[in-house]
Amino acid sequence: MPYISTKTNLEITKEKENVLKQKLGKAIELIPGKSEAWLMLSFEDKVNLYFKGQSDQGIAFVEIKLFGSANSGIYDKMTAAITDILKEELSIAPSQIYVRYEETKNWGWNGSNL
Amino acid sequence: MPYISTKTNLEITKEKENVLKQKLGKAIELIPGKSEAWLMLSFEDKVNLYFKGQSDQGIAFVEIKLFGSANSGIYDKMTAAITDILKEELSIAPSQIYVRYEETKNWGWNGSNL
Amino acid sequence: MPYISTKTNLEITKEKENVLKQKLGKAIELIPGKSEAWLMLSFEDKVNLYFKGQSDQGIAFVEIKLFGSANSGIYDKMTAAITDILKEELSIAPSQIYVRYEETKNWGWNGSNL
Repeated sequence: MPYISTKTNLEITKEKENVLKQKLGKAIELIPGKSEAWLMLSFEDKVNLYFKGQSDQGIAFVEIKLFGSANSGIYDKMTAAITDILKEELSIAPSQIYVRYEETKNWGWNGSNL
Repeated sequence: MPYISTKTNLEITKEKENVLKQKLGKAIELIPGKSEAWLMLSFEDKVNLYFKGQSDQGIAFVEIKLFGSANSGIYDKMTAAITDILKEELSIAPSQIYVRYEETKNWGWNGSNL
Repeated sequence: MPYISTKTNLEITKEKENVLKQKLGKAIELIPGKSEAWLMLSFEDKVNLYFKGQSDQGIAFVEIKLFGSANSGIYDKMTAAITDILKEELSIAPSQIYVRYEETKNWGWNGSNL
């Protein structure tokens, strides 16, 4: 039950959003037991974001919310993958990207908790 | 001090939002010690959401952020209630709804922490 | 690696956003080891927010997401500072403001985790 939220100050066209969706759906497989079959995604573009007091370059804030947990080596690979995707598709510099992980104990789907 | 964030790819009319607000204000009472008297709510509609790689059906992502904690049986009832509300009011299938819980240790109100 | 998300039902003009950005960039120094040099910010205005079942007054929901942790006395000072800033710049009553803290173990920047 993963959820990936992507916020950026840039515009994401529908074409790009579709590519990002596909690439994130593949990247989530880096986390054992996770796949696109359970992945929910949100994309918020043109968000009023600042980093280091500036907003003149591309910025992204990504949150990966998981049911359960994984080890830190896995998260490290995931950060590398997500950063690559955003660099390639939206031309955001890796130094302008934060990726944050939230492990979750209580998560509901289909009317009851897992 | 609960906060419920509701994100959906569907449109929420002001009339529906008002009904959702009222029903969530009632549902929060399932959690001991919580009531609408301390509840903050946000509704974000027409969000670019995907579930299982698709965006052609209604999808909802709900986060319930609590000061303190409750037991898992309580959260299970809450998930059932929230899912019912979204099914009834927005016609979203329960299998398209995630409800995520975040317990919080540090929470400020009125200029100082609880 | 802090991130501060500010959501309000009010409008935030670009001028006000700039002042808020500067003041939050200073306030973050209350947390040992944190500064604007690593701070990411988001501002979301005109959000559909309710507090106590009402939406006719100014409301703000602020989340401070930190890599690592700090002690509760520090968070208390931070809540006071944030509340003052929102009161002064957006005329939101302190009793209409929640400030929530999330400590984070796994946080990525520049393609790898800290």
